[in-house]
Amino acid sequence: MAALKLHDLELSGNCYKVRLFCALLGLSLDLAPVDFLGGAHKKSPLIERNPFGQIPVFEDGGVTLRDSQAILVYLARKYGGEDWLPMDAAGLAEVLSWVMVAENEIARGPADARLHDKFGVDLDAGLARQKAEHILGLLEAHLHKHEWLALDRPTIADIACMPYVALSREGGVSLDPYPAVRAWISRIKALPGFITMPGL
Amino acid sequence: MAALKLHDLELSGNCYKVRLFCALLGLSLDLAPVDFLGGAHKKSPLIERNPFGQIPVFEDGGVTLRDSQAILVYLARKYGGEDWLPMDAAGLAEVLSWVMVAENEIARGPADARLHDKFGVDLDAGLARQKAEHILGLLEAHLHKHEWLALDRPTIADIACMPYVALSREGGVSLDPYPAVRAWISRIKALPGFITMPGL
Repeated sequence: MAALKLHDLELSGNCYKVRLFCALLGLSLDLAPVDFLGGAHKKSPLIERNPFGQIPVFEDGGVTLRDSQAILVYLARKYGGEDWLPMDAAGLAEVLSWVMVAENEIARGPADARLHDKFGVDLDAGLARQKAEHILGLLEAHLHKHEWLALDRPTIADIACMPYVALSREGGVSLDPYPAVRAWISRIKALPGFITMPGL
Repeated sequence: MAALKLHDLELSGNCYKVRLFCALLGLSLDLAPVDFLGGAHKKSPLIERNPFGQIPVFEDGGVTLRDSQAILVYLARKYGGEDWLPMDAAGLAEVLSWVMVAENEIARGPADARLHDKFGVDLDAGLARQKAEHILGLLEAHLHKHEWLALDRPTIADIACMPYVALSREGGVSLDPYPAVRAWISRIKALPGFITMPGL
């Protein structure tokens, strides 16, 4: 098997979710640290690999992928089996409906709030914190009744959603009012092979 | 086959993409119009079907789904076959990486700008238009070199991304500077079974 390669930033929750899922699958992953402050992701050669100018960028032999959620789909389908991403229509769509929450509500909420507070990105931090409280409330209600987000077992939905939820504090949002969310994060941390990141 | 049911709003691009994809697949779909102005999507019985309080909500027998992108995945997998959503890891992830663009960049750009201008939603319309121009520039560059977003044929990536791009004008963003985007929209409009929506 050719080496898997991740153009990586240690402090990025989106890069972390790829590192975490590879660890859970027992896959070895070559990390190529990106000079983020120097804007290497906006310049050649990375910009040719991902014209969106974002990280992570992932390579597996001839396959190059952008978007952390799509990379999780790839890894699950190629190396993880149906436990992490089922192929029946209803199961696949249920998992992906939660993966979309990572791409939308969690990105606009706790992830944006953290971008502002930790990296000084110019955005409406008050609005991001409001959106963070809203999605945390929805997750709390759901996880009060379910152990995992999408199915009766961990899937890539949990891996996609957990990092920026668990990093909420770094965007000025406390998880204290959300015990079911905290218990869910603990269940993910107890999965065999789990690895952490700074701030988690 | 039990009837497919969509809790629907005619002017919603997210509802439209489900109606459109069903039409392209030749599936009949029962439309249940939602009293959006009356907030029916935030109340029982819809809020039990989708605690996020959003439309569309889709039902197929015992399966209930939220999120238009996840509904497209379901329809493709159950009724559409691999033409619309391939199951090999690289193809699946490539299609989904573009579906994520519908959930993220297009939602934050042209869709948000239209929410402001057409529905009076209180958000930063200037920022949404800026994000719209950014993603339209990326789409233009990509579609200058490719006929379809993800593969060499139409997939659910095109169905997911097209509506709010084609409705950009309703958010104060002209498509005049983006000829490749306009040609792509025309190719989608020429697909057998295509149906339109107001404003398109």
